[in-house]
Amino acid sequence: MALHHHRAAACSWGHRARRAYSSSAPHAACIAELQTLLPPEILSKNPSVLAAHGKDEAYFQATPPDAVLFARSTEDVATALRTCSAHGMPVIPFGTGTSLEGHIAAIHGGLSIDCGGMDTILEVNQEDMDCRVEAGVKRLSLNEHLRDTGLFFPIDPGADASLGGMAATRASGTNAVRYGTLRENVLGMQAVLASGEVIQTGGRARKSSAGYDLTRLFVGSEGTLGVITELQLKLHAQPAAVASAVCSFPTVADAVDTVTALVQSAVPVARAELLDKTTMAAVNAYANLSYAETPALFLEFHGSDAAVKEQSEEAGKWAQEFNGMGFAWASALEDRNKLWHARHNAYYASMALRPGCVGWPTDVCVPISRLTECITETIKDLEEANVTAPVFGHVGDGNFHVIMLMHEDDPPAYTKAQKTINQRMIERAIEMGGTSTGEHGVGVGKLPHMLREHGQGAMDVMASIKHALDPAGVMNPGKVIL
Amino acid sequence: MALHHHRAAACSWGHRARRAYSSSAPHAACIAELQTLLPPEILSKNPSVLAAHGKDEAYFQATPPDAVLFARSTEDVATALRTCSAHGMPVIPFGTGTSLEGHIAAIHGGLSIDCGGMDTILEVNQEDMDCRVEAGVKRLSLNEHLRDTGLFFPIDPGADASLGGMAATRASGTNAVRYGTLRENVLGMQAVLASGEVIQTGGRARKSSAGYDLTRLFVGSEGTLGVITELQLKLHAQPAAVASAVCSFPTVADAVDTVTALVQSAVPVARAELLDKTTMAAVNAYANLSYAETPALFLEFHGSDAAVKEQSEEAGKWAQEFNGMGFAWASALEDRNKLWHARHNAYYASMALRPGCVGWPTDVCVPISRLTECITETIKDLEEANVTAPVFGHVGDGNFHVIMLMHEDDPPAYTKAQKTINQRMIERAIEMGGTSTGEHGVGVGKLPHMLREHGQGAMDVMASIKHALDPAGVMNPGKVIL
Repeated sequence: MALHHHRAAACSWGHRARRAYSSSAPHAACIAELQTLLPPEILSKNPSVLAAHGKDEAYFQATPPDAVLFARSTEDVATALRTCSAHGMPVIPFGTGTSLEGHIAAIHGGLSIDCGGMDTILEVNQEDMDCRVEAGVKRLSLNEHLRDTGLFFPIDPGADASLGGMAATRASGTNAVRYGTLRENVLGMQAVLASGEVIQTGGRARKSSAGYDLTRLFVGSEGTLGVITELQLKLHAQPAAVASAVCSFPTVADAVDTVTALVQSAVPVARAELLDKTTMAAVNAYANLSYAETPALFLEFHGSDAAVKEQSEEAGKWAQEFNGMGFAWASALEDRNKLWHARHNAYYASMALRPGCVGWPTDVCVPISRLTECITETIKDLEEANVTAPVFGHVGDGNFHVIMLMHEDDPPAYTKAQKTINQRMIERAIEMGGTSTGEHGVGVGKLPHMLREHGQGAMDVMASIKHALDPAGVMNPGKVIL
Repeated sequence: MALHHHRAAACSWGHRARRAYSSSAPHAACIAELQTLLPPEILSKNPSVLAAHGKDEAYFQATPPDAVLFARSTEDVATALRTCSAHGMPVIPFGTGTSLEGHIAAIHGGLSIDCGGMDTILEVNQEDMDCRVEAGVKRLSLNEHLRDTGLFFPIDPGADASLGGMAATRASGTNAVRYGTLRENVLGMQAVLASGEVIQTGGRARKSSAGYDLTRLFVGSEGTLGVITELQLKLHAQPAAVASAVCSFPTVADAVDTVTALVQSAVPVARAELLDKTTMAAVNAYANLSYAETPALFLEFHGSDAAVKEQSEEAGKWAQEFNGMGFAWASALEDRNKLWHARHNAYYASMALRPGCVGWPTDVCVPISRLTECITETIKDLEEANVTAPVFGHVGDGNFHVIMLMHEDDPPAYTKAQKTINQRMIERAIEMGGTSTGEHGVGVGKLPHMLREHGQGAMDVMASIKHALDPAGVMNPGKVIL
């Protein structure tokens, strides 16, 4: 994907923030010390390596770190953090670089710690349905490894992200309505603090009331409190039967109402994805498909044969009630894969709508009773400004995504309109009792909205926790909190 | 229930700790100031009121506070905390007093803030399946209020506790295997910090990745970080059909194996309670029932008619595989209530085994593959020391309870044996990768085991968070962390 930077705002934080930290001398001293402590082959200053570690999948300006450590072990991470803390050099944990809000940008320079090489699956406990993995293990590798055990790890954010990165950003995705987000599927972790101290949180018990929930404090902290190096994860039984379906609807409201009715009827829907007409058009064009180009639901049900049959019938009933235009069912694995492949490619399909574009992906999450209103108002804003932007999301959770397409030839007024639309969408979500980000995280993109969402009191608490755990302020500075 | 205090250890923490804090003068000054700020009818120094607020349902020595505030509002709580922080007077939040590890004991004196009067159900959002309640609302009142909405709040720790107290102690109980613990069922909260500042955490979105998870940091913090005054809770659809059953087994291992097989087969069991033979005898005697006095499983399934039927059949199949001696099914509400009434009365039934006794309830939670071993070793310890103690628990979670019966006439050697058994049970659980407490919390009872469970690094993190949020150390001092 071509990397551009379009927006004055995207530049300004980078420039403004960097001033507070770096003069090259102290970073040079820190890197020199790291070179004495770590073998040369795992510490890189190669410009292309640096560039690849300063940019995630979103539109943000690339801001490379000063060096990259390819960590092999928790000990490597601890050595790096001890040294960086002593020198006050920022540290940015890196998984696969598939974040979407600039989480990994080295906006104050510093050391990127790439945990991708820490990719050992340390333990799978079939009877307990849990596993222990190093932070760099990717979710598809884990599921591949689990294939013959009858178990799987359900969290699916789309990208084949590392589990450490998914924990750091509190990933969720299409299965969350049934299986929860990463937050609900982690039992414990090993993390390295800014001081270099290695801590263990949680354990292997399914539940515990033994003290503060440090595990969930680190989940979603985006590398600002420490570096996650190992995870103890819950696994789930592979369902005996799976059925997927696509159903078209005349309006977004009808599609949302169908899912609301299903959830309220206690039907344990496993996936309930809404794709708006722009997304359906993008998916059709990208994957050479021929779905109706109207709002559609992609549904999936997991269970026994009988349960899946019953759930499917219930879905059919509710879809009919809300003007659904027939179900295309796919029970065979190959058909289901094709269907979900189309959904998973929504991001790339969107980008293909305007060749040469980059995507500005943004997401909010609202109470489901406000979802239709939030989506339709957002689509109205997009249409009024003539901004091409597929809208799709996880209806069962009230979470949806907008990918605004940005091109370097866009006139400033168009870019400004996109910024206004994003701002209005976030304000609308917060006013509705929702959140500025359902699953992408804060990074730098949502940072300006944190105060509005949480209020000064909660932000002060977050800042005091950050300061208590990272007094030198070296852990991924400029993300989550100012 | 008669209140005794038996153990030297139980006394020693009270005496040792109190020295660090109270000389009566500063507390008198703080209380005098509170009397100028709050109406006299909500601030009590009545000895019987003080006594009732210094003792929970466990065996611990009563340690009354110096005064009790019957808070009417968040503002009352904020006024009290501001004043107490300024004077350095301890504050102990109080719900219904049904905790089990001495959570509410005023071991350093101070002000007990009774939130029981803050019992308004502020909002029920049927479409969003959530509600907002004041902290003093009790779980049975909430479910009574919800009865006609088709929704319910599933967390059931046995006692009719306040929801604020349940959040503060991360309550779970019999339904957790299907619906999660309180941690998974809270969307957000309002809390008052030691400074008197009121914060909001979370929101109404089903998921969010916007910053540190303060909601889950406060859940289980046992009043040591602030006072929870309001909760936004998830609700669930009342199942269309419910079936409960009791099945006897020759051994604890057979019963546990049955549940393990069910969970691994992805059967969504709603409740899976193990009662050992001592508990079954206690329940029979207490409620005039005639169950077989062997280990038994109490199971419950929720879903559609067809789903419940299928799940029940699956349970029957697995029980037979593991030597189950027939199921007694109860589908009618009245029969189910009778069955669960017996289970819920296990605590009081246990106490009735030795008239004049108090119970020493303790609980641990381990990976389910170790549950049989953990329970049978514990029962062996109890039998060897001839200690009467029903054992029962939530098998699906790996969590079990032991209620050791204590009498004031017990010889010191007997009391010492009980202490050793508890110590061994906790050490065993931690060694197995489990936790010193699955759902009772830390309070003062499990405090000595926190370091062993979490290690110095994690305990230091907890302490630094505590210090950051409560620099004067007034929030329920002597609980959770030293």
